[in-house]
Amino acid sequence: MENNHGPTLVIHGGAGTIVRNKFTEEKLQEHREALKDSLKVGYEILSKGGSSIDAVEASVRVMEDCPLFNAGKGSVFTKGGKNELEASIMLGISSHTAGACTLLRTVKNPISLAKTLLLDPDNPHVFLGGIEAENYAKSKGLEIVDPGYFFTELRWKQHLDGLEKGKISENSENIISIIGKDIDDEFNQDPTGTVGAIAVDVNGIIAVATSTGGFNNKKEGRIGDTPLISSGTWVDNETCGVSGTGNGEYFIRYSVAHDVSARMKYLGESVHEAATNVVKDLKKVGGDGGVIALDKYGNFSMPFNTSGMYRGYIRVSEGVPYVYIFDDE
Amino acid sequence: MENNHGPTLVIHGGAGTIVRNKFTEEKLQEHREALKDSLKVGYEILSKGGSSIDAVEASVRVMEDCPLFNAGKGSVFTKGGKNELEASIMLGISSHTAGACTLLRTVKNPISLAKTLLLDPDNPHVFLGGIEAENYAKSKGLEIVDPGYFFTELRWKQHLDGLEKGKISENSENIISIIGKDIDDEFNQDPTGTVGAIAVDVNGIIAVATSTGGFNNKKEGRIGDTPLISSGTWVDNETCGVSGTGNGEYFIRYSVAHDVSARMKYLGESVHEAATNVVKDLKKVGGDGGVIALDKYGNFSMPFNTSGMYRGYIRVSEGVPYVYIFDDE
Repeated sequence: MENNHGPTLVIHGGAGTIVRNKFTEEKLQEHREALKDSLKVGYEILSKGGSSIDAVEASVRVMEDCPLFNAGKGSVFTKGGKNELEASIMLGISSHTAGACTLLRTVKNPISLAKTLLLDPDNPHVFLGGIEAENYAKSKGLEIVDPGYFFTELRWKQHLDGLEKGKISENSENIISIIGKDIDDEFNQDPTGTVGAIAVDVNGIIAVATSTGGFNNKKEGRIGDTPLISSGTWVDNETCGVSGTGNGEYFIRYSVAHDVSARMKYLGESVHEAATNVVKDLKKVGGDGGVIALDKYGNFSMPFNTSGMYRGYIRVSEGVPYVYIFDDE
Repeated sequence: MENNHGPTLVIHGGAGTIVRNKFTEEKLQEHREALKDSLKVGYEILSKGGSSIDAVEASVRVMEDCPLFNAGKGSVFTKGGKNELEASIMLGISSHTAGACTLLRTVKNPISLAKTLLLDPDNPHVFLGGIEAENYAKSKGLEIVDPGYFFTELRWKQHLDGLEKGKISENSENIISIIGKDIDDEFNQDPTGTVGAIAVDVNGIIAVATSTGGFNNKKEGRIGDTPLISSGTWVDNETCGVSGTGNGEYFIRYSVAHDVSARMKYLGESVHEAATNVVKDLKKVGGDGGVIALDKYGNFSMPFNTSGMYRGYIRVSEGVPYVYIFDDE
């Protein structure tokens, strides 16, 4: 019989070109603390016997509310200077219940909208997008914010920098002349990424949550892998839960999250073998990113093929949050 | 070595509760002729050495333009009385190139928008939705129509009938009193369904195209499985192409299209075994529908777990279109 580690929470805060010498020690510490905050909030729920879906929602909300991560408050801008958010959530039970939402401009916590869609007995749909999804969120009493809430200086600079680097939108020159061109190099890291959490609770049920602002200077209307069940989010209690981060188009075109699960189911690979193999294969075809994956026994893997991935885990049996950023730790 | 059947086109026009005695012989014939028209158009392209992506686009366009199928012109209505269309297209080559679009109200042929997204070298995205997708379509010279183009009497009656059966929207009573309640029973079949095509061309490249109006009285903003790579559409030349039709939420939650491919890849099943097993498993969890699946040698399968699925195939080596509707033919 396999060793059961009991309730466990694994999170990521995005993968990408995260170069050590571009960060001050203070900034690194800030990211580590934010990851620990996310883990602690989920741990509080799991340690009291709460459900994995509540734990992953709470854990992701912390990262959505933190401007350091590309989701919620810290979302990147579209080419036209807007924020469009998306998220999904899924349960590993036999009905594979899921909720997903996209093209959101006013929903403060997309992951809570995804959870509401999943749990609402009157909602026959998995996936809602755009203004109708926002109206639904409003009708359910979720927090609605002015689009300006999502403005952060760092993301705006990354937006302008991206426009400067050749991906010029029609009005980019005007924007640059108005805002100025002083791109802050220290934080001009590759602003891809996503946040995600997977938990297994005391009942052995796995839940996965993923949320993102997409990628810097995406077209308005672009839907990425994060809200797509199979691409950026997947869970089946018989195999594992998976949450992805990286170049979303690759995650869509290679069915990354579901493929990890399929390798476990059909090849008998462990969660570590399956996740590692999929992330390696992704690199071979040019896809940058990583995944976190967790099985119902609390075994997990956090492979990535970039220089870094914000990530961490906590076990209820230990109560200690472990967090990592670079590929050599 | 496996027998190679050469260029082949397989199509479906939706699966669902299709009851023989609810159709006149004339109406059945009309559906069979429409399927044959779709096959012939794709055959013309394949037989001249054309590409599979051109063949599936052309074949699906015929069904989108035909009011008999739930896609394009014959799309069902949302709960609020609108038409919202979606589609996706994918190539089996190693880059797994794909294009997808959703929440369209004015694009006459969603499948051509999906193909344009796939082929556009300036488009970094797989998936666009809503008004931005429509603006993109317009900028590429695709045909834009007034939303009224998608009105058909049959779908409107199914819309009203659905509202009457308890899924009442706020203004349904007004609509019914204006339009009248004379639901035509003969065609009041389960209006689920989708259209799809898979082709393998003379170069052995597989392409898949799927298009739909969604399901009757869906919420506005609902995104189904049809535009989702892995759910309603998938292809990998090393395994097969898959296009699904049925209860979309199940196709999303069970990663149906990718699962057929995964079973071939990891279990070594044939295209027939894999497709049949997935459709059987789908029924066990309550999901109605079917898939068509085609490998690069021209082997195909068209399993479904409902009473009927509009479907057919044509081989370039024969030039004869074969079409079927019910489960006993």
